[in-house]
Amino acid sequence: MPRYAAKLQYDGTHYVGYQVQPNGPSIQAEIEKALKLMAKLPKGQHIPTSSSGRTDSGVHALGQVIHFDYPAAIQPDSMLRALNSILDSSIRIIQVAQVADDFHSRYHATGKKYLYRVDTNRFPDPFKRLYTTHHPYRYNLQNMQAAIQAIVGTHDFSSFCSSKTDKENKVRTIYEATVNYDEASHELHFYFHGAGFLYNMVRILVGTLLQIGDGLKPVNELERLLEAQNRNEAGPTAPPQGLCMMEVEYPEDPFK
Amino acid sequence: MPRYAAKLQYDGTHYVGYQVQPNGPSIQAEIEKALKLMAKLPKGQHIPTSSSGRTDSGVHALGQVIHFDYPAAIQPDSMLRALNSILDSSIRIIQVAQVADDFHSRYHATGKKYLYRVDTNRFPDPFKRLYTTHHPYRYNLQNMQAAIQAIVGTHDFSSFCSSKTDKENKVRTIYEATVNYDEASHELHFYFHGAGFLYNMVRILVGTLLQIGDGLKPVNELERLLEAQNRNEAGPTAPPQGLCMMEVEYPEDPFK
Repeated sequence: MPRYAAKLQYDGTHYVGYQVQPNGPSIQAEIEKALKLMAKLPKGQHIPTSSSGRTDSGVHALGQVIHFDYPAAIQPDSMLRALNSILDSSIRIIQVAQVADDFHSRYHATGKKYLYRVDTNRFPDPFKRLYTTHHPYRYNLQNMQAAIQAIVGTHDFSSFCSSKTDKENKVRTIYEATVNYDEASHELHFYFHGAGFLYNMVRILVGTLLQIGDGLKPVNELERLLEAQNRNEAGPTAPPQGLCMMEVEYPEDPFK
Repeated sequence: MPRYAAKLQYDGTHYVGYQVQPNGPSIQAEIEKALKLMAKLPKGQHIPTSSSGRTDSGVHALGQVIHFDYPAAIQPDSMLRALNSILDSSIRIIQVAQVADDFHSRYHATGKKYLYRVDTNRFPDPFKRLYTTHHPYRYNLQNMQAAIQAIVGTHDFSSFCSSKTDKENKVRTIYEATVNYDEASHELHFYFHGAGFLYNMVRILVGTLLQIGDGLKPVNELERLLEAQNRNEAGPTAPPQGLCMMEVEYPEDPFK
């Protein structure tokens, strides 16, 4: 069966996350339902999909990548049109490509980019409440910008990983991490580019960085936490709706 | 009792519209509930509010204006903070002012501005689906720009008014009407500034203009419809979610 990769965007607001869960609708279930309908599969059969990584309930994506084997050879653009015509408008496939039989959206990924958006308006913007976290307090941007540099490089991120993880190895490499204020939108933008991320890692980093910005923690707090290797010492997990998976990188762009 | 004016923004997605309706939650009911709670009114009593005009189910606002009489003199900023702390984040009060006892948000309004956003992406952007209408077809922008000029001035807009209206007089004055393509967002922006608007007027105008853009109707269609004075001859009512009430004008800005 030919293998396909697809790049997708979704508004995660009304989903339990990317991955199939017993307690509510998931992006994965919606896509597999659409594939099954397209392929006219009999009851009991389905087309399993794999993603570059799960996203949590309420987390969004602008560049999630998945792959699956489809029972027929179909032009990628026909596949894209067919899927989009079935899927709810909260999910949109933006690219489809036929890929090598051994392509794997997760194992072959070499990097990921995340954006975390914080609405700093005094009162939350009604049009952004699903896509930002509201944080109207005074903050020191310079302190957050100085602090965030500590995570660049290869570190043990145990302090920034949910205890619910099943991963043993907590060492990850971050290529770039920045925080900036966007005048036009009145938003703080936390940007992370790394080889890989642990469960809730971006959200715990943002929760801790906001504490540093608020003056509740010292500027060198992230350095201390990297050494402490203890989740209980880090800041709170920032809410899901501010987080968006922006891009997944591969040695060779599967959609080129 | 002192009279207050408030300017508000709302995401109309999950409301039946501005005005109280028996069939679901309304912005007005949410605000009156918040005012009642603030004023600690006994059961059966409430603080009625009036708006500059109703907005339909699913229609949004960035500058709706309302007024109400409050049983105590409160600092406008305290009122603003108290209301926002009670209201759901889909509604935000952005300004409050104490106004003259005879100020009326509807009768004193001298102008209104509306924006209608159309997502022209091939597939609908998941993050805009609640705030735009998706229209991925080829269109002729120049034809729409030429056509829209016909409505500027004072005209009988009977062709562009829902039959559900209770208004006898269908003559309205439009100061400015434009349509432009926004490169950054891949959106068509229809902008209307007028002394007043009829029920569904903006949405029927946009529905008809899109037909002109698509080549289904000639460029002089709006002129013909202004003369025809017949709703059945105009185009469809464009969906609510693309529409946003941007601003209400008064001879003197009540919030200055």
